[in-house]
Amino acid sequence: MDYQAILEEIHEEIKPEIGRGKVADYIPALSSVDPQQFAFSIVTAEGERYNVGESDKNFSIQSISKLFTFTLALDIYSRDLYKRVGVEPSGTPFNSLVQLEYEQGIPRNPFINAGALVITDSLITHYHDDYKAFERIINFIRDISDDPTVSFDPEVSTSEMDHGFRNLSLAHLMKSFDNLDNDPRTVVQTYFKQCAMSMSSEKLARAMLYLANGGTDPLTEKVYITPQQTRRINAVMLTCGHYDASGEFAFHVGLPGKSGVGGGIVAVVPGKMGICVWSPALNKYGNSHAGTLALEKFVEKTGLSIF
Amino acid sequence: MDYQAILEEIHEEIKPEIGRGKVADYIPALSSVDPQQFAFSIVTAEGERYNVGESDKNFSIQSISKLFTFTLALDIYSRDLYKRVGVEPSGTPFNSLVQLEYEQGIPRNPFINAGALVITDSLITHYHDDYKAFERIINFIRDISDDPTVSFDPEVSTSEMDHGFRNLSLAHLMKSFDNLDNDPRTVVQTYFKQCAMSMSSEKLARAMLYLANGGTDPLTEKVYITPQQTRRINAVMLTCGHYDASGEFAFHVGLPGKSGVGGGIVAVVPGKMGICVWSPALNKYGNSHAGTLALEKFVEKTGLSIF
Amino acid sequence: MDYQAILEEIHEEIKPEIGRGKVADYIPALSSVDPQQFAFSIVTAEGERYNVGESDKNFSIQSISKLFTFTLALDIYSRDLYKRVGVEPSGTPFNSLVQLEYEQGIPRNPFINAGALVITDSLITHYHDDYKAFERIINFIRDISDDPTVSFDPEVSTSEMDHGFRNLSLAHLMKSFDNLDNDPRTVVQTYFKQCAMSMSSEKLARAMLYLANGGTDPLTEKVYITPQQTRRINAVMLTCGHYDASGEFAFHVGLPGKSGVGGGIVAVVPGKMGICVWSPALNKYGNSHAGTLALEKFVEKTGLSIF
Amino acid sequence: MDYQAILEEIHEEIKPEIGRGKVADYIPALSSVDPQQFAFSIVTAEGERYNVGESDKNFSIQSISKLFTFTLALDIYSRDLYKRVGVEPSGTPFNSLVQLEYEQGIPRNPFINAGALVITDSLITHYHDDYKAFERIINFIRDISDDPTVSFDPEVSTSEMDHGFRNLSLAHLMKSFDNLDNDPRTVVQTYFKQCAMSMSSEKLARAMLYLANGGTDPLTEKVYITPQQTRRINAVMLTCGHYDASGEFAFHVGLPGKSGVGGGIVAVVPGKMGICVWSPALNKYGNSHAGTLALEKFVEKTGLSIF
Repeated sequence: MDYQAILEEIHEEIKPEIGRGKVADYIPALSSVDPQQFAFSIVTAEGERYNVGESDKNFSIQSISKLFTFTLALDIYSRDLYKRVGVEPSGTPFNSLVQLEYEQGIPRNPFINAGALVITDSLITHYHDDYKAFERIINFIRDISDDPTVSFDPEVSTSEMDHGFRNLSLAHLMKSFDNLDNDPRTVVQTYFKQCAMSMSSEKLARAMLYLANGGTDPLTEKVYITPQQTRRINAVMLTCGHYDASGEFAFHVGLPGKSGVGGGIVAVVPGKMGICVWSPALNKYGNSHAGTLALEKFVEKTGLSIF
Repeated sequence: MDYQAILEEIHEEIKPEIGRGKVADYIPALSSVDPQQFAFSIVTAEGERYNVGESDKNFSIQSISKLFTFTLALDIYSRDLYKRVGVEPSGTPFNSLVQLEYEQGIPRNPFINAGALVITDSLITHYHDDYKAFERIINFIRDISDDPTVSFDPEVSTSEMDHGFRNLSLAHLMKSFDNLDNDPRTVVQTYFKQCAMSMSSEKLARAMLYLANGGTDPLTEKVYITPQQTRRINAVMLTCGHYDASGEFAFHVGLPGKSGVGGGIVAVVPGKMGICVWSPALNKYGNSHAGTLALEKFVEKTGLSIF
Repeated sequence: MDYQAILEEIHEEIKPEIGRGKVADYIPALSSVDPQQFAFSIVTAEGERYNVGESDKNFSIQSISKLFTFTLALDIYSRDLYKRVGVEPSGTPFNSLVQLEYEQGIPRNPFINAGALVITDSLITHYHDDYKAFERIINFIRDISDDPTVSFDPEVSTSEMDHGFRNLSLAHLMKSFDNLDNDPRTVVQTYFKQCAMSMSSEKLARAMLYLANGGTDPLTEKVYITPQQTRRINAVMLTCGHYDASGEFAFHVGLPGKSGVGGGIVAVVPGKMGICVWSPALNKYGNSHAGTLALEKFVEKTGLSIF
Repeated sequence: MDYQAILEEIHEEIKPEIGRGKVADYIPALSSVDPQQFAFSIVTAEGERYNVGESDKNFSIQSISKLFTFTLALDIYSRDLYKRVGVEPSGTPFNSLVQLEYEQGIPRNPFINAGALVITDSLITHYHDDYKAFERIINFIRDISDDPTVSFDPEVSTSEMDHGFRNLSLAHLMKSFDNLDNDPRTVVQTYFKQCAMSMSSEKLARAMLYLANGGTDPLTEKVYITPQQTRRINAVMLTCGHYDASGEFAFHVGLPGKSGVGGGIVAVVPGKMGICVWSPALNKYGNSHAGTLALEKFVEKTGLSIF
């Protein structure tokens, strides 16, 4: 298939939709991003790269980072991880406290904020220190994106912390249920640092390769997790990767994917490729408007749905 | 792959688990079923059939019927159907009223009871009559299972009606929100009749073929729905097919599937086969205990996960 | 105190507020009522009567009837009644299903619809028949209002039944939790008949005397319930009598009271008098707008709050 | 009435109940309290004092303090206070986040923890400083109890802070909804200090006199709030003073009252007296078991219910 031609076709068709929706505005560092941006990148298991748009422009990966910390925690804790976080869709917005209270501090899945906080907490516990835990996170992301320069934007993470009251509320609630080992502020701070990682769509598509290839990077041959663990991460992405619109995404796109409020969406075609699309303006569910539509077009044109 | 050998291996391994859990006991017709039964059937897109256990024994298909009425309604109403029922996982038990009330009578998806009632209501409206609607449902199921003798068990449906207070509550609630066209009792009665269809695992595996083959029966070449509609039904099965354990099922099995309280679970491997497993004793989520484990083993042994 | 002068003063002051708000519009029989009506009646324990406005005009007593069936059921079942219905404020709208489902079919109190349905069901069970139960209800109301002609409006009750889907939903839900003895439709029908009782503000003020006088009618000396039961009914009126605005009513008025969507509000000053105010236009909580304000003024002018 | 005789009679009758239930155990400072203690104190508007049991033994007033900060805030902000906190019963446990999230950070009433935190926050804002705000609180309590030595127990407040994750969660949630002016930790800390006030039942009964007397201390003639404000505080006590058992308390006791997990319950008979009963072991609702029963007996014996 001529992926480059397909991406260009999508880019052309999607233009009227770019900038529609609303850029995340809860912190200045995100609200000032130009909504008129778009990128679509593919990296195949053979290492071929296809890009359109601003595919080398860095953006804040935000919740996409949850995928990477989930991978690290699953590798460390294996099944034991599921004592502290479930794998069910939440049926409620990503940062809701209702279900968390009703379910005694056990978050529904690793992709709602509460779940991601538990995952980060588990890494801090394992590495005995929040700095070491974050070092491990950043090194892992550098590894899978095959780029040792990838880093985080301290302006973003500081700004998140200044407005992070709801995440602090979630963290304290879980602490009250004994489902957080470390100081809630430390956990939230580390979490905001991982969310503030800056990456381009090309790097993120590259970083997804291990999930398209049974847990092993097909280019470097580094083994990160088992094929079974990989399938399971992909399953959780499909059922829970887009907050309260996960069903819609499975329904319209049909690929395991994960979005972030920075406007990025990553996805995998198992066995074939890593994908990243980026456009900062979000739909009402908090997922990239143009990005979601572009992925829908991609699946229609290529037939690469898993269904 | 030698599917027959794999099924026999699974049958052997699963024996200690058969009968564990609890047979549905809310109506006598279901509670009297012998829990020590098990069947596993595969029908491939080429028409090959593989069976182990009591694969020709009829059981009550119950919620599996929701898949077939969803197909009919999607064919009739297309996108308009989604004005009356969503495609998101519910995050709450299959017959909960909470979310339905909060979301103004629009059920989360076609596989929770409320959603299935709306679907059945839409068929009654289309066929102007509950008997004609049910005739259409039964004929469709006969068609896809390629067996004109398939029928429903009136003892089961009558018994359901005698204990159907919660479904009547759901139906009246949706009626109060104007999301039911017809008399709530009539809708519930028709719904219980579709649930009371009696089929064997072999027939159900056969009936799933159109969903494994883009909406067209690969053996009879009858076209039921479009490939896109098929992908979407499969996506909804994956995210919502197992009530409050849909995430677990996607996580452990990784195939689009739908369970019923009669102990049946159907699934598809897109492009390849229809599957049905049956064992009456249920786990705490209301899904067949041995059936779920058998499917998990099947995916492990064959690698046929969609992820 | 010159109650007549006070009522006239209130009538004068309240005029700009009469008709503000919205007449109940869920059934034609209620929506056609002229909103520009107002009445305020007092009957003291000594039998003195004070009236202003259309105090002899009959209106639909609606939920005020819950007070009378609660009295009858308490007399019959005593403490056992509280196994089936609580005495706590609900914190949610009067006809919500959420709490009822969460609390396993046990309604929070006798004044939300679910609670009133349980009460009516208990009367049908006691009298072995819905007609006899309703006869008892109507005779009790005739007794306490000292008027053998008081009756119900069949047009209203029939119209309620045609639009009663939510109450039918509540009744079926409780039936599914085994907290309803009789057929849900029969219970709802009887409930709608009690709600359709037609009474004037003067008759209702008269009917409240037994609650102002420890359970004994001070004029006829008939004993209905014990002083302790009376205090408890009054307490439930204070904490739960105005749906989701019960706190507001206690806060602003400070008298045990019960409202109905027909625009009536009854109240008692323990030891002193029965009160009824009526004006059909309702505030956002479903309580009479002018009626609530008039009672607030009454308490301000007389200091007759229980606090 | 011979109050002393009545109190002694109650003391005798209540003995088998003292110690039944469970002492608050979430912090060491409370869990080590001897459950076999009981006190009952009355101070009349004329200044007569009646006591039984350990009526001069100090205990942690805990949530009873919410009454005093509510008084101060109502005096400062008047009606404007109700923009930030409601007066409706919550229908859910005292520290639930569900309703708070659903209602956008506006607590239901000043007596659930969230509401009390908002009240304390409003005092910190008014006095520009948490130390000054707390100084005002402590001085007010010294004033109304007519005892300049009343103080707080720093061991209790420090211990609360160490286990205060749920209150920190509530505070951060309200901050995220912009319903907290000050730093959430500072607010929670000040709140824990007010809860850690140590007082005897006699002092608390004395402190309630202004609420039994229209806002003016009948002995010192100091005016704290208006009669109308007093009636309203009493109304909120009645409808919301005992968490999720407020209806039960109104039903069984029928007096405006407020309980604390230290085992104290204060109440007023409007126009007549301030009351405090204390016994550390709590019932399942978190209210003093023996204390609640003792008050019930008091009302039965004296007929001093407001209903």
